[in-house]
Order: sequence, then structure tokens, then C-alpha cells
Amino acid sequence: MAASAPSSSSSTGGDPDPNSTNLRPPSTNYDWSGVAHGCTRKLGMKICGFLQKNNNVDDKSRIVGFFNDQQPKSILTRDNERDSRFRRTETDFSNLYARDLLPAKNGDEYTMQFLLEVVEILTNYVRKTFDRSTKVLDFHHPHQLLEGLEGFNLELCDQPESLEQILVDCRDTLKYGVRTGHPRFFNQLSTGLDIIGLAGEWLTSTANTNMFTYEIAPVFVLMEQLTLKKMREIVGWPNGEGDGIFSPGGAISNMYSVMVARYKHYPEVKIKGMAAVPRLVLFTSEHSHYSIKKASAVLGFGTENLILLSTDERGRVIPADLEAKVIDAKQKGFVPMFVNATAGSTVYGAFDPINEIADICEKYNIWLHVDGAWGGGLLMSRKHRHKLNGIERANSVTWNPHKMMGVPLQCSAILVREKGLLQDCNSMCAGYLFQQDKQYDVNYDTGDKAIQCGRHVDIFKFWLMWKSKGTIGFEKHIDRCLELSEYLYHKIKNREGYEMVFQGEPQHTNVCFWYIPPSLRLLPDGEEKRQRLHKPQHTNVCFWYIPPSLRLLPDGEEKRQRLHKVAPKIKALMMECGTTMVGYQPQGNKVNFFRMVISNPAVTRSDIDFLIDEIERLGQDL
Amino acid sequence: MAASAPSSSSSTGGDPDPNSTNLRPPSTNYDWSGVAHGCTRKLGMKICGFLQKNNNVDDKSRIVGFFNDQQPKSILTRDNERDSRFRRTETDFSNLYARDLLPAKNGDEYTMQFLLEVVEILTNYVRKTFDRSTKVLDFHHPHQLLEGLEGFNLELCDQPESLEQILVDCRDTLKYGVRTGHPRFFNQLSTGLDIIGLAGEWLTSTANTNMFTYEIAPVFVLMEQLTLKKMREIVGWPNGEGDGIFSPGGAISNMYSVMVARYKHYPEVKIKGMAAVPRLVLFTSEHSHYSIKKASAVLGFGTENLILLSTDERGRVIPADLEAKVIDAKQKGFVPMFVNATAGSTVYGAFDPINEIADICEKYNIWLHVDGAWGGGLLMSRKHRHKLNGIERANSVTWNPHKMMGVPLQCSAILVREKGLLQDCNSMCAGYLFQQDKQYDVNYDTGDKAIQCGRHVDIFKFWLMWKSKGTIGFEKHIDRCLELSEYLYHKIKNREGYEMVFQGEPQHTNVCFWYIPPSLRLLPDGEEKRQRLHKPQHTNVCFWYIPPSLRLLPDGEEKRQRLHKVAPKIKALMMECGTTMVGYQPQGNKVNFFRMVISNPAVTRSDIDFLIDEIERLGQDL
Repeated sequence: MAASAPSSSSSTGGDPDPNSTNLRPPSTNYDWSGVAHGCTRKLGMKICGFLQKNNNVDDKSRIVGFFNDQQPKSILTRDNERDSRFRRTETDFSNLYARDLLPAKNGDEYTMQFLLEVVEILTNYVRKTFDRSTKVLDFHHPHQLLEGLEGFNLELCDQPESLEQILVDCRDTLKYGVRTGHPRFFNQLSTGLDIIGLAGEWLTSTANTNMFTYEIAPVFVLMEQLTLKKMREIVGWPNGEGDGIFSPGGAISNMYSVMVARYKHYPEVKIKGMAAVPRLVLFTSEHSHYSIKKASAVLGFGTENLILLSTDERGRVIPADLEAKVIDAKQKGFVPMFVNATAGSTVYGAFDPINEIADICEKYNIWLHVDGAWGGGLLMSRKHRHKLNGIERANSVTWNPHKMMGVPLQCSAILVREKGLLQDCNSMCAGYLFQQDKQYDVNYDTGDKAIQCGRHVDIFKFWLMWKSKGTIGFEKHIDRCLELSEYLYHKIKNREGYEMVFQGEPQHTNVCFWYIPPSLRLLPDGEEKRQRLHKPQHTNVCFWYIPPSLRLLPDGEEKRQRLHKVAPKIKALMMECGTTMVGYQPQGNKVNFFRMVISNPAVTRSDIDFLIDEIERLGQDL
Repeated sequence: MAASAPSSSSSTGGDPDPNSTNLRPPSTNYDWSGVAHGCTRKLGMKICGFLQKNNNVDDKSRIVGFFNDQQPKSILTRDNERDSRFRRTETDFSNLYARDLLPAKNGDEYTMQFLLEVVEILTNYVRKTFDRSTKVLDFHHPHQLLEGLEGFNLELCDQPESLEQILVDCRDTLKYGVRTGHPRFFNQLSTGLDIIGLAGEWLTSTANTNMFTYEIAPVFVLMEQLTLKKMREIVGWPNGEGDGIFSPGGAISNMYSVMVARYKHYPEVKIKGMAAVPRLVLFTSEHSHYSIKKASAVLGFGTENLILLSTDERGRVIPADLEAKVIDAKQKGFVPMFVNATAGSTVYGAFDPINEIADICEKYNIWLHVDGAWGGGLLMSRKHRHKLNGIERANSVTWNPHKMMGVPLQCSAILVREKGLLQDCNSMCAGYLFQQDKQYDVNYDTGDKAIQCGRHVDIFKFWLMWKSKGTIGFEKHIDRCLELSEYLYHKIKNREGYEMVFQGEPQHTNVCFWYIPPSLRLLPDGEEKRQRLHKPQHTNVCFWYIPPSLRLLPDGEEKRQRLHKVAPKIKALMMECGTTMVGYQPQGNKVNFFRMVISNPAVTRSDIDFLIDEIERLGQDL
């Protein structure tokens, strides 16, 4: 609560609203004798204010000011006349330290008050995240933050800071961060702030346990198993049979797929290494995620043994190209071992034709992996899941609920169709962890399937979200995001100043486009040019000066070079204004373009309109 | 809050205390007219009670009962006479769903109330975690939990559950879990529940961002850099120079070390794979963590190219054995590439002699990695850091703050002495993420160093803990844990019924011992045997029946077999009683023994006494 923060002016959690007026002057004394249960004035008001703020956004400015009354102490008094055990307590966080919290003797009270202060900061942040009148970010360069903005000192010291300063640090950390849940944050595939997921994460960190054994994570281990089975059912594997595990992200999940494929074909690699096998080659689309390339480097295949497949203009693998390259590799004496089909590519949102790829994989006995890190979520939608037709023929699937399904980071699953492979591939049978003489069924000790030892509990938030939304809730979310991207697509496809990177409706929520500032547009001779030319004449002699913005800029290298700089410039301006964020990148021989993606349930059409307005506002004069 | 839970009897967060009495009957009406700011009776009492509970453990039974009054509705009324905008609101979570929370229109109020309910559950859990009168766990077999205990249904459905049910699910999840922060949970290297760390995790999940770029995690990226530099300074690298990254655990950190070593010696592996290089061999102690073996399998070396080093009786590598095996490998034409020295082995807590190992590595040009996942924390202690002498000569170091330093899971660092290697080894230069034409210094985009793409924010909780404790706070914690383990060691080393697995004071907090139940003890002829023999005679003829417990059980295979079963049996009983948890395992040719470790700041001598009493109580009749 800002009341306990000495530098509340630099804090986000309890930002003072310049328009705020105090509900009541804090020095006034009220007759609180009627308050049962010993909540006295100061804390009572604080908590009531907390709830008021939380309950009525309109009122917040009136309340927030109340907590910025420059009184650093929060005072708790319990004064129940009927019970002498109730006593007055004063809490001044400036004299309290971490060592005063639990497990310190009598640390219970301070601990609860401290955690309540933290929750106040966090809930204020949550409210602001959804408030369109707040910025998405308050951008500063690294050197500015390192120099210590308004007393926000990142350096670590030998001596402890007071809890008051810790609370200020928490506010400042949020203040200078990026609101990834803001309705106008479009920068990444993972956006949004799901409240149930957030609650799930808070619980997960309070439970603070580890997934390696049933022994210390019984509930979470079972939740993982049930959820993975459900996901396999949705993929389409009979009875949800198979295996899987949650990993620390899509890149690691994809790496698992390559490892398991290798083990399936050449189990001796585990013991003898890559030297013992023929030259193995892997295939993936030139539009696929770079993690497949990382995996080929990490696992000892070498990136030159990853063969890139050509795509059509929409970024989808051309199956004939795959077959040709498989045949070519075989002719060279290499062994085609692994094909990655992308379901929802990172930039274009393209879905490779899985069935046609599966035909080739079956024909040549190649492991088929589907990287559905981004597109897997569409399996939840009866309307859109056809885009992944054939996925049930895959040997393994990556699916990141932390992307399209809005689960907080990190939450990524690798699913494997053949049971037992994951365990056989990775197990090392550590005696200190996976004892076979435990009193319970040790098949539930799943840690030896992982390449990790300790493993973070990523399942609970996802399980809780699924419980709270039901499968149909995820479906609605997916359908809605896709509708919004259609809206964007139709809005800009014929709009002046826009050019689509590929033609046709996007398969996923990715909408890729160039914004062409007026100075780069082809302005043909005609009435508009006449009108615009009419104004800037500064000459007495009989010729026109044609400013750059009115010249015909032909398609060509100069235009490409200039267009390449447009998206970065607009993005930089966006970040400095803090109004919105959207990604850009080049792709192949295409210069920098915007990639708009939608995965945040908070987004509405108005936010998309806002983005377009903002691009035009910031790009007008480039 | 239990008031909103229909099945509060199956919930932990708000367990009704059987001795509780209601502070006031909930049906009574009070005159709350004096309450400013519109906090009315129901919620006011609820919140006041929340704070009372949090502020006085002694009073909790009196208050907790109040929240179990079978009234599922929490009611919020704001009734400020001076402001008509204040209005009465009723909240019944049984009719609310996830879809009613933010970003739903008017979802602000429900969101805040829901989060407050969750926090109530979590803070109750925190309090109980530190309360020695609570159990460490409430053990159930997998099939019991899967069948659905007291309505706790783990299955996922198509339709959503109400928020009321979600809150019950949260309570049940905690109820059937394991309190890893309990002062009597000794089962793992990661124990304890640090309040500042917990607050840090709550904030991290609220910020919900990703470490790959400065763009979307500016503050966290800088915190990571500063903290890694500080850690390198403590390791002893000049000016803290070098590189590093936080990874999803010690196993992955160790894997990084092998990858970077390989890249340093054979950068062509990245492109050409393991087939392009000679046969590389790795060395590690037979007592080292199994993740080194996992890494050799994953990365394509093959586990047979990992050579295990012999140790002394304390589990420390014998340097002469390393040198002999290096020479032997070279003679066979293999290339010794990587040595792992363990600083704090998992079972014995042994510290390999780093300086002597470093001499050999320098002599043969081998990469030296120090796996300080468990023992790295001792670097924070001036008293104990000498055990890692020579670590500054390592090429890379794994150090897990989530173990000995009590940081919540996951928090593991890989540190690399040579700058740039990590980037060169792992970078794939993905254009959509690591654009070089951003407006800020893109050297701060550290994601391309990682084998992951998205990367969870593991730094903040650690940074915040460091701020709040200072370096000296960590030092005190380390010293205290080591003192406690000395206490345990001295308590049992000569105690009847105990045998130490290795002699001498432990180097780390690991104390490894067998408990020998009376039935397995060597009872020599003497007065005690005479006394005990006196009782169980059931015979009229002139001989003694000597029951097994009084027989001289010579050291030998039968005793070994029986002793092997003792620790698992006691452990099973402990878990069923729920009173404490401690790990056991065999090691080499040694049968199952207990491995006691201390990393939880909540532990006191009395908890160690309790453990010993409990082992004796449960093991008495085995």
C-alpha cells in the first residue's frame, strides 16, 4: 500500500492520481466504537479502501489518494472490549526486515501484513492491466534503468533492505515492466492475464514443490497425467493412450520430440552416442520455429543435417518438396529420420498439410512430429481444428497452452504416441530419487522421463483454468480470437497504405502486413495529387516542385530499403509512447513487416482499431 | 474463505478447528453505522477476521469458526451516506464463473473478491506450513486420489465449474499435497517457504512475461545480468566477468556446461554434428548427480563415454584416479574433453577437491565444470566457502539458489567464465525475435544464449530475497543450517541403534546414517541381554528360547537384506503418519540408509530431535 512507501511517486502499485481528492482527511478521528471485531480506524479504512478500489473503478481516484497521505505506518489495532487478548499492534515496515517474518518467532502477524501489502500492489497492477487508459509500458533504455531511476536501485548489497523498501522495489519492478496482459499488447504469441491462471500460479508458488515424484507432488502429478491424457484424446489418439510431459517451453518440447525419435530408431545412441549411427537427417519448413534448428545443434546432429523445406506463398510446406528431399537424402546415403510439421507457424500462422506429410513419413518410415506450440490450441475449436487434420497420425506433438490458450507462462506439453519411449529414452534410474521399494505405485514417479531432474509445477494453473472454463470455454476463446483477426484482415486488406504480406484470410490469428507511409506510396497522377500539389508551391517560376511524398516511388531496391525501416521506426515510437506493442520482422526476402497476433481474451475490435490508428499516426511522416 | 465453500470439511485453507467457537453468532445484527467507507457487516467481519487470524495465532481458533458458518455468500455492501455512487453488492461465488472475471465488463469487483478469497486460502496455508502441530502431509495412494476423495474430482470436463467450486479445488489441492516448507520436511535438497521469495513469485506470475528480450522484460533482464555478475564475483572470477543464464534447473544447467565445453573445443559440432569430431569422453564422480549422465545421452556423446571416477570413503573424487583415466582414454585414442567436479554431492554432500582436479584439467586442456547445484550456496559463507576452494579455476559453474539458499523453485544458474561462448554456442538469430534494428542496445536481448525460446522469469524472487536479506542474510542462513547438521551428527554418531554411513563430520548438511532396529542390533552377552531374556521365556524345560531380537545377528548378507528394508519401512510409516519426511537410498554397495539434509530456515534443534524420536518410535519393532 502506498501509505507505507516513502517514494510512492515512483511506484506503480499505488500511483497517486493527480486528480484524486482524499475521501476524508486522514487526520480526522472517527467514532469507530461500533466496529465489531476490533478493526480500528487506520487499518479498517485501509482495507475498506482496498475493497472499494477493487470494487469500483470509477471511485478509484477518490480512494487511491487516501493511501498516499504520506503516513508511512500502517497501524493495526484490535480492541475488542470483550476479550483482553486483543491488543494494539503497530506495524512500521521501515523498521522490519525479512528476518522478522516467518519462521521468526511471532513472525506470523508481520508475515500476513506484509503479504497483504504485496497483494494490494499486485491487485492494483491487475486492475490497471485491464484499464485502457494506462500505458502498456513506460519505456526506458537499459542504461537509464541501470543508473537507478527515481531511486530504483537494481544493485545487490551485503546489508538487508527494510520491508518498506522491498515493497517499493516491488512497485518499481512493475512500474518499469511491460503489461503483457494489457488489451493493446500484441507483441508476442503469449499475451493476456488470465485471473484463474494467475490464482493457480499463486497457489503453485505457495505449494513450492517439484514434479519429480508422486511422493512430494501427489496431486500435481495426477493432474498432469489426467490433463496429458485429455490432450492426447483431443489430438485423436485412441483412448488418449500414449505418453507425455510438461516441459519448460516449446523449444524444449520440440527437442524432446527429436530425442525420442532418435531413440526409437537408434536406441543405441543413448549409450554409444551419435558416432554409432549413420548420418541422420531431419526435415522442417523454412518457416518453422528456430527451436528445431537448436535441437539439431544441441543433440549432436548438426544444423547442416536439418534440411529446410520449401513452402507455398502462405508459408505451408510443399509435400512434394519433402518427398524430393527425402529421396535425395537417401540417395546420398543419409538416413531421413524426423520430419517436423508446423501447426501454426510463428510468423505467418501457417498450418502445414499434416495428412500429406504423414503419407510421406509412413512411406519412408520417418518420425512425424507436429509442432503445435502455437496452433495446438485450435484443436479445442470444432470450427478450426480441421486445420490440424492428420495430427492424430503424428508420433509426437508439441502443444503450448501458454500461447493460444492464455495459460500463464510456462506451460508446454510434449505428447508422444508410443507409451514407454519417453521413459526408456531418458531414464537414468537415480537411486536417491526413484527408489523402487516405496510403499506406493512408483509408476507415478514420472521424473525419470524428463531431461530435467527438478521440474517446476506447470500443470496446476492449466488444470484450474480448464476446470473453470470447461473445454467449451477454451473453444469460445479460440473462436473469438480468430474472429478478431478476421476483422483486422478485412479492415486493412484494401485500406490505403497497407499491403498484405500474403494473400487470403490468415489460417491463424497472425495477420502480416506492411504499412506504407505516404512518402513511400505510389501516388498516381490524378486529382488527389493535383490537390496536394496545389498547396506546397513555393515558387514564382513556372514549374512544380514535387516533394518526395508525392513522387512516384517505383517498386525497387530503394523502396525496399526504406520500407524495411518503417516497421522498426513505428515500433520504436510505439514503445516510447507506451500505447501499444506489436511485433515485426523480415522473412526470407521480404523486408520488415508487422506481424499482428491475438491471443488475449481482453482484446476487442476497438483495440484493433486503436492499433491501426496508432500505426497511421506514428507512421504518417516517415 | 471457508464461508464460500460448500464442502469446507474437505478443505485445508479454512479447516474448521474442532475447538473453535464462533466469536459472535453470524445471524446477529450490529450497528455498523459508524463504519466509514462503506464496509458493511458481512465483509467487514470477514476482512477483520482475516486480519485477526493473521495477527494472532492464539486467537485463530476463535475466528476460524466464524468463517465456517455455512453461509456460502460473501456480501459486500458499500453504503456511504455522503456518496450515492457507493452501492450495495452481493457476491455469491456459486453463481459466478471464470467468464465473469476480468476482462469481463464490470469484472473488476468480482476479480478482486475472488483473488482475495484465494489469498485467504494461501495465507492460511502459509501459517499452517510453519505450525508444527500440523502434519507435513496427508498421504493417500494414487488410486485413492483418482477415485475422488470427499468430492475432490481431478477429471476435466466440457462445462465450467463455478468459482465457488474452483476455490474448493484450490483448498483440496493444498490439503492433499505436501508441505515442503514445514519445519519437519527434510525430504529434498529444496525445502522451506521463504516469504519474500513467495511474494516475488506472486509478483512474477502477475507480471507474466518472458525473459527472451529486453523489450518485454526490461527490469527482469537487467536483474538477471546484475545477479549473475554478482554470483561470478562470488565465484571469484575477476570483476565478475564472464557470462551466464538462469535455466529451468540444475540438470539443464549441467547440460549447458557440457554443450559449451563441446563448442569451445569443437565449434564445428554445431553445424556438422558429433559425427565430425573424434570420440570425446567426459569424466565425473561415481557420486555425482545423474544429470551429467543424462547430458551425455541427450547431447549425443553416449553414456559409455562418460567415465566414472572413484571416490574416497567420504564420496570425494580421487584426483589420481582422474589422471589415470585421462591418460588411459588418451591412449585409447579418445579425447578427454570435460570434467565435472561436484561441490556438494547429492547424497553424501561431498566436495570434490577442485584445485587438484583443476591442475589435471589444465595439464590436459580439459574443460572443468563445477556442479555446485547443491553446494554452491556455501560460497556465501566466509566460514564454509573454503570447501569450494579452486572454483575460480572452473570454466563453468552450476549453482542452484533454489536449493541451499532457500529460493522458491525454479532458480538455477549456469555461469561461464569465457564471455561470448554461450551466445556463440546457442544462437540461431531468429529474425522475428532478435531483430538487430531495435531502438535499444540489443546486447540486452539475451534469449539467443538459451536453448529455450520462451524462458520463465526465475530471477525476480531471488533478486528480491537478496535485497531483503543482503549477502549477510544468506551467510547466516547457510551457517545456521550447517550448525544444525553438526548437531544432528554429534547427536547420533555414538547413539545406540545408529551407524554412520561415512565417518567424520559431514562437509555439507547431509548426514547419512542407518537406523538399526533392536532386532538387528548386535546384543552382546551381558546384563541387558540377561534382563531381556528373563521375560519372554515360555518353556518348562531347561533351555532358553532366544528371540530374534536378542540373537547376535552377525554382519552378513541376512543383516544387509533386512537392514535394506528398514529405511523404506520407516519412511512409509512416516508418510502415513504424516509427521515428518526424510529421504533414503542405497549407494554403491551400501544398503538403504537415511540421508538427512537441512536447507529450511524454519528448522530448529527440536525438529531434529523430533526426527530422531520419530525414527525410533516407528522403527522400534521392525
